[in-house]
Amino acid sequence: MVREICVDLGGDRSYKVIIAAGILDETGRLLGAETGQPRVMLISNPLVFSLYGQQVVEALQSAGLRVSTALMPDGEEYKNMQQVNHMLDEAMAANLERSSLILALGGGVVGDLAGFTASIFQRGIRYIQVPTTLLAQVDSSVGGKTAVNHPQGKNMIGTFHQPDLVIIDTLTLNTLTEREYLAGLGEVVKYGIIYDSDFFQLLEDKAALLKDREQETVQEVVCRCIKIKSEIVAEDERESGLRMILNLGHTFGHSIEKLGNYKSSKHGEAVAVGTMLASLLAQEMGLLDKPSVDRIASLFDKLGISASLPAYNPDDIYEGMLNDKKVKNDKLRIVVPREIGGYKIIENPDRSMLIKIIKRAASL
Amino acid sequence: MVREICVDLGGDRSYKVIIAAGILDETGRLLGAETGQPRVMLISNPLVFSLYGQQVVEALQSAGLRVSTALMPDGEEYKNMQQVNHMLDEAMAANLERSSLILALGGGVVGDLAGFTASIFQRGIRYIQVPTTLLAQVDSSVGGKTAVNHPQGKNMIGTFHQPDLVIIDTLTLNTLTEREYLAGLGEVVKYGIIYDSDFFQLLEDKAALLKDREQETVQEVVCRCIKIKSEIVAEDERESGLRMILNLGHTFGHSIEKLGNYKSSKHGEAVAVGTMLASLLAQEMGLLDKPSVDRIASLFDKLGISASLPAYNPDDIYEGMLNDKKVKNDKLRIVVPREIGGYKIIENPDRSMLIKIIKRAASL
Repeated sequence: MVREICVDLGGDRSYKVIIAAGILDETGRLLGAETGQPRVMLISNPLVFSLYGQQVVEALQSAGLRVSTALMPDGEEYKNMQQVNHMLDEAMAANLERSSLILALGGGVVGDLAGFTASIFQRGIRYIQVPTTLLAQVDSSVGGKTAVNHPQGKNMIGTFHQPDLVIIDTLTLNTLTEREYLAGLGEVVKYGIIYDSDFFQLLEDKAALLKDREQETVQEVVCRCIKIKSEIVAEDERESGLRMILNLGHTFGHSIEKLGNYKSSKHGEAVAVGTMLASLLAQEMGLLDKPSVDRIASLFDKLGISASLPAYNPDDIYEGMLNDKKVKNDKLRIVVPREIGGYKIIENPDRSMLIKIIKRAASL
Repeated sequence: MVREICVDLGGDRSYKVIIAAGILDETGRLLGAETGQPRVMLISNPLVFSLYGQQVVEALQSAGLRVSTALMPDGEEYKNMQQVNHMLDEAMAANLERSSLILALGGGVVGDLAGFTASIFQRGIRYIQVPTTLLAQVDSSVGGKTAVNHPQGKNMIGTFHQPDLVIIDTLTLNTLTEREYLAGLGEVVKYGIIYDSDFFQLLEDKAALLKDREQETVQEVVCRCIKIKSEIVAEDERESGLRMILNLGHTFGHSIEKLGNYKSSKHGEAVAVGTMLASLLAQEMGLLDKPSVDRIASLFDKLGISASLPAYNPDDIYEGMLNDKKVKNDKLRIVVPREIGGYKIIENPDRSMLIKIIKRAASL
């Protein structure tokens, strides 16, 4: 079964997200039909490329596309300007033109960096997302946020540049490590907490199947996530309001990732920890009752996700949050749940209250 | 007299260009009124900053803005990713936020690089152009093309990111070297040739005053250029059609600049040479008669602009043109005059014809 969702941004900026098992072989056909037959530069990392690269290259070539390949090392620490420069060199060497395409085959790091490269090469060329991790499939591949990290802060450098097409092959999830898969589930839970209590319920009901990567469940869940995300992005493409809610857990999370040098915690893991912190903060502020906090903790638990806080200094966590780019006019803004399925954006929460919450989480 | 032109891009993306003598002192008042009172990072080079930096900083501060300064070396060879990284570091160090501003004080190099930095910092912050060279005042400060060079090609890396406001103080032209001023006149002549025969006539009539930088003439000419540019940009912001005509002389010009390592020829000088080459090509193709070619050559001459071709190998010039980013689907496109005040876009002109034209220009 092929599921198709349209991210409706009006006019020719709208694009399709196609979700199915085993659809990588169709990449060439899908691109040829959507985009003509231009040059394509495939960006990936050695691990993902060894698993799926040849398959995608052959699918593209058999559709008449001229393909070149550019690899970057695996890992968040390589989502930086050095690698962007490397990709720009590769794009020049491959004679990419304004009509050419970049195709991102991999997880969020590859997708964010490839999208950013596409957005600044010759003032913006088209790109295609082919996400192969759960996190990228349910979140980062859709919505046009591209970015790399600055040594002093995550995603500080980037653009809004929407992809032309997103192709999601859920079979690729089978080759993820347990840790990588679970990290993606952290972002899945986010959608339920902040936007859709029915979806949260579904996750509770199907937690075991989802944890076991049962294909039908996985496809349904990915599709629900993309639907929610596309609704939010269509409403607020540039994050001037509603889209901010997708940052649930991210302000805490970015600080935690940074303290671990982007190595100790995966993004999805840090977001799960951050989501628990945001839930505790909501409880403290009377926005979320104790049973709901327990339901959230219990769902993380059922899914096998660790949401416990690494042993960092609470003051360091707080300082890192102040440097997050959601700080606007020197205001710290934190998204928290308001009951399950709702949200509230807190401006400038008390430092002492945040430190208290962080300490409480550390003792759980 | 203060002249004001609106670049009409619809809705809140439209912006004003303000042209007057001695208006640098008003920078703070103009920004405060337009943009609130955010942090401002002023980007400039040491030479321009020594002339006008303190004046602008004081104007900003007296309007309540918090100002930091970041300098880059002077010269096209510094319009590169290394300097962008330097500016991103400075922006982080200055704690710029999403609501902050970048102000570009300088010529085209400073403006292009500052605009690009603004477009990728935190996925795009606002920026203000305060151009101090003629070339930047009549062309690069308006229209939202930002860019830096790749070692293999000019302006290969960049974005479309419109400024919030452009402030043009024509008195700053008095401190330009003769060479720098004349290079800017090359771009001025372009508008007349390609778009407005009345303006071409005006340039012929007032050539001596213009060459002598007579203020009233300079202001009138800058204003006419901006009006033409803003009409073209409003019609075709992203250069899918009409805007391409602003590249008159640029395909030849970029190749010449590159062969001189961006040092031997200034951009405006290379464009003047390229404009003569394009005129000869138009003549060869029967689009421009001999008297018009002579009028163009004669206007360059009256203005004191050298449009003679440096002694590069014709084949090298041709190869450089093929690498220009206007090459679309492997097609070479060259803008040429069609009589004075009109244009035609030539696709894939014959290699042998181009070489012949280049050789003819070299022998003039």
